[in-house]
Amino acid sequence: MIRFALFGAGFIGKVHAKNIHNHPNAKLTHVYDVNVEAAQQLSAQVGATVVANPDDIFASADVDAVAICSSTNTHSDLLAAAIRANKPIFCEKPIDLNIERVKAVATLLKGKDLPVVMGFSRRFDADYAEAQRRYRAGEIGKLEILQLTARGPKPPAISYVKVSGGQLRDQTIHYFDLAAWIAGEAPTEVYTSGACLVDPAIGEAGDIDTALVMMKLPSGALVQIDNSRRAAYGYDERIEIFASEGMLEAGRKQLSDVRKYVNGRVESAAMHAGWFERIEVSFGTFIDAFVRSLHGEAITMPTFWDGLRAQQMAEAAYQSLQTNQPVKVDYWLP
Amino acid sequence: MIRFALFGAGFIGKVHAKNIHNHPNAKLTHVYDVNVEAAQQLSAQVGATVVANPDDIFASADVDAVAICSSTNTHSDLLAAAIRANKPIFCEKPIDLNIERVKAVATLLKGKDLPVVMGFSRRFDADYAEAQRRYRAGEIGKLEILQLTARGPKPPAISYVKVSGGQLRDQTIHYFDLAAWIAGEAPTEVYTSGACLVDPAIGEAGDIDTALVMMKLPSGALVQIDNSRRAAYGYDERIEIFASEGMLEAGRKQLSDVRKYVNGRVESAAMHAGWFERIEVSFGTFIDAFVRSLHGEAITMPTFWDGLRAQQMAEAAYQSLQTNQPVKVDYWLP
Amino acid sequence: MIRFALFGAGFIGKVHAKNIHNHPNAKLTHVYDVNVEAAQQLSAQVGATVVANPDDIFASADVDAVAICSSTNTHSDLLAAAIRANKPIFCEKPIDLNIERVKAVATLLKGKDLPVVMGFSRRFDADYAEAQRRYRAGEIGKLEILQLTARGPKPPAISYVKVSGGQLRDQTIHYFDLAAWIAGEAPTEVYTSGACLVDPAIGEAGDIDTALVMMKLPSGALVQIDNSRRAAYGYDERIEIFASEGMLEAGRKQLSDVRKYVNGRVESAAMHAGWFERIEVSFGTFIDAFVRSLHGEAITMPTFWDGLRAQQMAEAAYQSLQTNQPVKVDYWLP
Amino acid sequence: MIRFALFGAGFIGKVHAKNIHNHPNAKLTHVYDVNVEAAQQLSAQVGATVVANPDDIFASADVDAVAICSSTNTHSDLLAAAIRANKPIFCEKPIDLNIERVKAVATLLKGKDLPVVMGFSRRFDADYAEAQRRYRAGEIGKLEILQLTARGPKPPAISYVKVSGGQLRDQTIHYFDLAAWIAGEAPTEVYTSGACLVDPAIGEAGDIDTALVMMKLPSGALVQIDNSRRAAYGYDERIEIFASEGMLEAGRKQLSDVRKYVNGRVESAAMHAGWFERIEVSFGTFIDAFVRSLHGEAITMPTFWDGLRAQQMAEAAYQSLQTNQPVKVDYWLP
Repeated sequence: MIRFALFGAGFIGKVHAKNIHNHPNAKLTHVYDVNVEAAQQLSAQVGATVVANPDDIFASADVDAVAICSSTNTHSDLLAAAIRANKPIFCEKPIDLNIERVKAVATLLKGKDLPVVMGFSRRFDADYAEAQRRYRAGEIGKLEILQLTARGPKPPAISYVKVSGGQLRDQTIHYFDLAAWIAGEAPTEVYTSGACLVDPAIGEAGDIDTALVMMKLPSGALVQIDNSRRAAYGYDERIEIFASEGMLEAGRKQLSDVRKYVNGRVESAAMHAGWFERIEVSFGTFIDAFVRSLHGEAITMPTFWDGLRAQQMAEAAYQSLQTNQPVKVDYWLP
Repeated sequence: MIRFALFGAGFIGKVHAKNIHNHPNAKLTHVYDVNVEAAQQLSAQVGATVVANPDDIFASADVDAVAICSSTNTHSDLLAAAIRANKPIFCEKPIDLNIERVKAVATLLKGKDLPVVMGFSRRFDADYAEAQRRYRAGEIGKLEILQLTARGPKPPAISYVKVSGGQLRDQTIHYFDLAAWIAGEAPTEVYTSGACLVDPAIGEAGDIDTALVMMKLPSGALVQIDNSRRAAYGYDERIEIFASEGMLEAGRKQLSDVRKYVNGRVESAAMHAGWFERIEVSFGTFIDAFVRSLHGEAITMPTFWDGLRAQQMAEAAYQSLQTNQPVKVDYWLP
Repeated sequence: MIRFALFGAGFIGKVHAKNIHNHPNAKLTHVYDVNVEAAQQLSAQVGATVVANPDDIFASADVDAVAICSSTNTHSDLLAAAIRANKPIFCEKPIDLNIERVKAVATLLKGKDLPVVMGFSRRFDADYAEAQRRYRAGEIGKLEILQLTARGPKPPAISYVKVSGGQLRDQTIHYFDLAAWIAGEAPTEVYTSGACLVDPAIGEAGDIDTALVMMKLPSGALVQIDNSRRAAYGYDERIEIFASEGMLEAGRKQLSDVRKYVNGRVESAAMHAGWFERIEVSFGTFIDAFVRSLHGEAITMPTFWDGLRAQQMAEAAYQSLQTNQPVKVDYWLP
Repeated sequence: MIRFALFGAGFIGKVHAKNIHNHPNAKLTHVYDVNVEAAQQLSAQVGATVVANPDDIFASADVDAVAICSSTNTHSDLLAAAIRANKPIFCEKPIDLNIERVKAVATLLKGKDLPVVMGFSRRFDADYAEAQRRYRAGEIGKLEILQLTARGPKPPAISYVKVSGGQLRDQTIHYFDLAAWIAGEAPTEVYTSGACLVDPAIGEAGDIDTALVMMKLPSGALVQIDNSRRAAYGYDERIEIFASEGMLEAGRKQLSDVRKYVNGRVESAAMHAGWFERIEVSFGTFIDAFVRSLHGEAITMPTFWDGLRAQQMAEAAYQSLQTNQPVKVDYWLP
């Protein structure tokens, strides 16, 4: 039984809390949030203890692992404390918006044999996981073009845009990680085109809402990502792995298999209402994989080092966006 | 909070137990099974009490509703006892294989304002429910042809075949209910063709494994059902509601949206492994609807009277099979 | 080069005329129609000669084959004359609405080694031909259920209904033929339910517009056909060959692969406007197969005997409809 | 009746010859090819005259229009001669591999009211035409991301690669034209990534076989194109028009609607064998549109100026590939 302490009782914290609570081999025992009321409410639902001081969690012998789901600017300190306390970590992405702080955590973690898992939940989407596994098993030969699409459904609140690190660090980062994870190699060069087409306020906040990213892989294969903060028709994700002997596609998903045939057209089901509805199930799969890996199963998890890598792609992508030049990515490692 | 007592801790009993246990407004408090060990095992998992004598359940003021999931031959007695005890009932289909015993329960229930819900779980499949709702809301005009398909995936064990009441009472009964529920009217005439094509032992046991049923509705619309006990490609269900202004289709379901493109063909995902995997989610929806209806929400549930109706269609279907004649259905009511 | 004489310059005659004219190894040399103007117009387009007396065609050494596309009541006489003249024949279905006249032609043809091809054009639909070929090649094991669907799009004019022989002889006959052709065996028993749901005038004319047909095959496999004279959403045909090791499906067809994604649904393309648009291409494939078979290629064509068989199924289906009894089909042969 | 003279009796010349010959309002009257035998063979099939000297065509009062389908290096001279002779022109793409020669033709054509149509056949694909028309009619709001995919199926012969102008001028040029045609505006900036992943001999010949192109439109919308010379699974094209109020997709096409359901997967049909099979029908639609436009119908045709524009995108794309920099496109006009 893995006893979890949770930092952050907001939206995503509650998602993970529920999955930990429902897991047969895990339970949520401690909850911390700067908003004490939120911590209390969540704790009451799952039978956990509210913790007033984060340090108590790191000092407790009754905590087997920590889940860091608090706001991004708290991640570095909590990661550092958990690493020092030698507690296995589940941390929401991104590590930190400041790459220097990310590097400091990396330096601290270096050489330690501690599970630090980053919340790249899309790796646990059943379709993506199947496509990746089958590609890596050699079913379709060598990668030539990898295409990743993610759109919508609605632009975030401007207040969120301002603290999100921007579209490339907040939305595209999932596809930076997926690209390297699927290809099995990290891009060496990034070129980005961006635009503010959805909401002028996003542009005024210094961000973009529509992004194309092109990347080169060491093998010579090419990657293209297209991202939008809005899709009028619901949430839309798809992947194509185009390779020398075939293609694997994880196609877009509709909500049902109901179709209506009327004069002039056939109507099929809507897309998901949002990114969360689309990948909700994968959060449970993720926690299950984490718990099983802590119990010793050999499961490849997205690690801190994957997070560091994805974040460096995002930095390069922003540099490309600002300079309108392709940017080489020299992956820093401590 | 609805406190449930469960009769039967077998496969389907455990399914309902889990959904009751996970429901925020319900809990499973008592479990009875002739196999005491099974009752104990299940009770331990959900924190329920094992009951040695069914009468204790009916007598208890701490039981708000009963779920009858024991073997079919026990249904009538348990239904009668629960009706007398005025406990709301969830009962697995069929009511009883002996139509006379079914009628006896009907006579007992007549005039009572007691919720007695029959386990026609397919009504709670999201796609079927959507198709039915949209048809009944008038989206496609008046029904002309209703087609219901359900196949596979594997023939049941002969031991089960012998106590199941036969394919038409065990498998087809779901589509008898769906037909009347979708159309909003009960068939007046049934014609059945059957064959034993899958497993000769089924034929030796006096049953069929492949069935076509054609029915006439009072409105003049026609129904066709095709059922097989085996589908080599997995479990396969679909519905077409063909009407005067269009068609609503609840199409067959595949397990994912992953596709592989190779020389000569495109391969998409498998079907579900079995009927249970196909409709597993609907069991949870069903229990939720039952709990909410017991809390006073106006939800149309499949009732005992629907079960009586479906069973009379099945009886007519068997008579048709045996006589190779179309058979009129005169619905008996107490 | 096969030199064709055509009887009938109406709609279907013009379709065949065009395909004969465009074929590299065939030409249309003679045209006869009781409507001389129609014959003249068509002849002018393809460079053929108008013939005033049908006998001149049968007597001519310059005619290698005849295409009988005139009204159904003329078929028997033209067939008999062509058989006597030893001219290879392409004849539109049905042979004749009067089964006795059909039998007379059969008796005349018996023992003769003359190609007499019936216009069962759906056999030349690429999808149906592929599905049949693959089933017969053993890809999915032994047939268990064969389902044939054909609907719409619009009820024929009442004037046509009156001379058509009725829905079962006019529309369903294609699926009687397809069923036997796919299964490789002819049904032994037929049961039909029919209704007049589309247009009361069809019922007043003594016909139905909605039909379900259930058939038993000697192997034990079952067949179900559903036919409607109207489909509000366009023309709709599909076939499922459900067998012991899998299923082959020739799915319904939409007009394009354009999809529109909007809030709440995905819209895809319309169905074909009518039966002709749906199978138009197959008429060309058919003529090509006929010409090649006349040149000696071993191609299995739908023959007069297939037409006789299908017509006997239709007769049994009507008898079943009238008596509401399953009817055995004893195939008469001269 | 439009009387056509054809230059070039090779593969594509024969395609156009057949469509001109079959058109009710056009005929092919003259054929020229440096390979006299090829000209003779084709002429014999369609009843045209072989012309020994191209000048005779330009001088003839019996030629209403010319189709230039000879090798690319002959296009400029033939275009110039036809412009001087005031003959309406259908010319295969590209205009000329040397942009200076293209400009010379442009200067000659400037100010003349002569139909000069470029062979951008994909505009006449029914699905692409429908998607473009519906987008331009405002069905889905304002363009945000345009994605164009075209792959395979087999790399061309090295001998062809060497004279083709390279992948971007030969394959991608169709999508340069489609992009501007769909968007209704021409890209202002192009960035290209290329690789030689399919056949090293292509790289040795100085070309690429895999290309990603990203373009910016004046409206701020973004375009991404992915092209490969090979697709192991057949020919693959698709378009997504992602806009503010929805998306229009012209999806990839499979050869039939036959599906096989077996244990573990559902198999559907192959893709087209090649680009020609995929768009073969559109060549006929194209010629028909050209003939009708010459008869005065108001049909928007792809013109010489569209060809000039697409070629300038291709030049910018090559410059970007060579410099690994985004390149502004300043469209030169005479």
